[in-house]
Amino acid sequence: MPSFTVFKGSEDGSIKKSETSKPELKGDQVHLKVTASGVCGTDLHYRKGDMVLGHEGVGVVEATGPDVKYMKKGDRVGWGYEHNSCEHCHQCLSGNENYCPERQFYGEADTDQGSFAHGAVWREAFLYPIPEGMKDEAAAPLQCGGATVFNALYSYGIKPTDTVGVMGVGGLGHLAIQFAAKMGCTVVVLSGSDRKKDEAMKLGATEFVATKGVKELKVSHPIDRLLITTSAQPDWEQLLPVLAPQGSISPLSVASGNLEIPYFPIVGNGLRIQGSVVASRHVHRKMLEFAALHNIEPIVEKFPMTEKGIEEAMQKLTDGSIRYRAVLIPQ
Amino acid sequence: MPSFTVFKGSEDGSIKKSETSKPELKGDQVHLKVTASGVCGTDLHYRKGDMVLGHEGVGVVEATGPDVKYMKKGDRVGWGYEHNSCEHCHQCLSGNENYCPERQFYGEADTDQGSFAHGAVWREAFLYPIPEGMKDEAAAPLQCGGATVFNALYSYGIKPTDTVGVMGVGGLGHLAIQFAAKMGCTVVVLSGSDRKKDEAMKLGATEFVATKGVKELKVSHPIDRLLITTSAQPDWEQLLPVLAPQGSISPLSVASGNLEIPYFPIVGNGLRIQGSVVASRHVHRKMLEFAALHNIEPIVEKFPMTEKGIEEAMQKLTDGSIRYRAVLIPQ
Repeated sequence: MPSFTVFKGSEDGSIKKSETSKPELKGDQVHLKVTASGVCGTDLHYRKGDMVLGHEGVGVVEATGPDVKYMKKGDRVGWGYEHNSCEHCHQCLSGNENYCPERQFYGEADTDQGSFAHGAVWREAFLYPIPEGMKDEAAAPLQCGGATVFNALYSYGIKPTDTVGVMGVGGLGHLAIQFAAKMGCTVVVLSGSDRKKDEAMKLGATEFVATKGVKELKVSHPIDRLLITTSAQPDWEQLLPVLAPQGSISPLSVASGNLEIPYFPIVGNGLRIQGSVVASRHVHRKMLEFAALHNIEPIVEKFPMTEKGIEEAMQKLTDGSIRYRAVLIPQ
Repeated sequence: MPSFTVFKGSEDGSIKKSETSKPELKGDQVHLKVTASGVCGTDLHYRKGDMVLGHEGVGVVEATGPDVKYMKKGDRVGWGYEHNSCEHCHQCLSGNENYCPERQFYGEADTDQGSFAHGAVWREAFLYPIPEGMKDEAAAPLQCGGATVFNALYSYGIKPTDTVGVMGVGGLGHLAIQFAAKMGCTVVVLSGSDRKKDEAMKLGATEFVATKGVKELKVSHPIDRLLITTSAQPDWEQLLPVLAPQGSISPLSVASGNLEIPYFPIVGNGLRIQGSVVASRHVHRKMLEFAALHNIEPIVEKFPMTEKGIEEAMQKLTDGSIRYRAVLIPQ
């Protein structure tokens, strides 16, 4: 009967230590010991909920259920936003289980466990082997942030000759720059000020454009695929003119309300707005392999996985002062 | 020196007869005698402009310029929204000249001629042979309305097993139903009231859904591709729940202002909003061949191509009382 320490949100936003016990492992369940967890923007959304936080988990297999086939004690594995799906619908059968109507997502299901914890029990089918040589603290932010940006590029027919625009240099953006650069693309980074220019160029950007207060943006290559990784919705009037004809826009931030975007350029220039959320499993696995092959690594700030450490990490993420992903390490 | 009668818009919206003269034919120019013209929603947008109206033209070749290679006197040909492009940019070279930044579109270039006329001079490169057996008045509405809906289906990877939603049964919608049905798709028609139900079913609809005042739409198949052919923007809150995961939306009407659509379902369900405008030439040609093969024909109301006839046709289009496309016939 696995039992482990977990860290939950609470009504006033403070982090509460607790304990979760799970019944004996059944089916393809795996009990793992957490070794690292990323801290993602969606964790901030849920911090006032009575639920265990965290969904960028990496750990080591402790024990396996009776039907586990591919994993064994001691293996390093990761998991992300999705824990389960129906395995029966069109989306599941076509390898798009991240859009299964019965999907079990972070924040909606299994709220008694998460990656802000010392352990967890998940189905083997939704765990990913961590490539050899990839550090735990580097693998953690890939489980959601990395998967999200890789999927937006990879699953929609990217060409190595495309120009990719990355709006925002944060947890997602600094990974998107690296993935797009290693895919062979021209990478145009758009950020408020020049503050992150040097780092963006080192990560693989071809060009850096500061946007704040600029009326007419100038880019040397019109953007074929624009990834919006900022939490606030961008100034579309400013952005649309630098998109190539038939360009696409991937809004990746989680926001409520309406998407409001000038209508006519969408139609007249054949633009595409492509929604997407995290990655299906086959894409997630390719992402990890691609990251390992090309030494794509998040830049992380480590915090102890304690109530105080988590609160500090979340505060820095809220402030926008994290460079570029917080990772919690169990003590 | 070709010279022909044309019909123009004017400041008060009345139609004015005039005469256009063109210099001697050069290059691949073709002088044609107009035999039929459709009347499209965009003609209404331009009716207060001092320009020749009409862009769904069909005619017979009268004379050919020195470089014309594939057309000869007596051939039946059609033309649509685009008259020319640079033939040099990426979009042109990749067969997407409808997104060429230098494209010459109706309303923006060549405003001294149009299809509300007795004649016209266009480049052979932007004319389309009319398939044998297709009547002039049937071919005319295909040159823009038909091309627009066929392109939205055909150019974005439609599968014969898709469920296509057609919102609005008018000039575009009644053609979209036929094209989608002949592509093998399940066709769900969404219209305000039941008024057009019988006709929609005869055109090939699988299912008809009246939307006015309905809180929760019920469809037997979630919609994979939704074509919006209404002039007003739809109620997105009502529509999004009947889209399949990873479904796409093609907004085809010409409107100003913003597209305003709930943000989260786009991201969470991986929806796509795909802008598109008319069709590139290779798609336009396939559209005509496909229509001829499957006897896809617009339902038309004919009007004499006179000032009075044009005004009457435009009035009925404005009222929404045309069933389903007005066609002008030169007297």
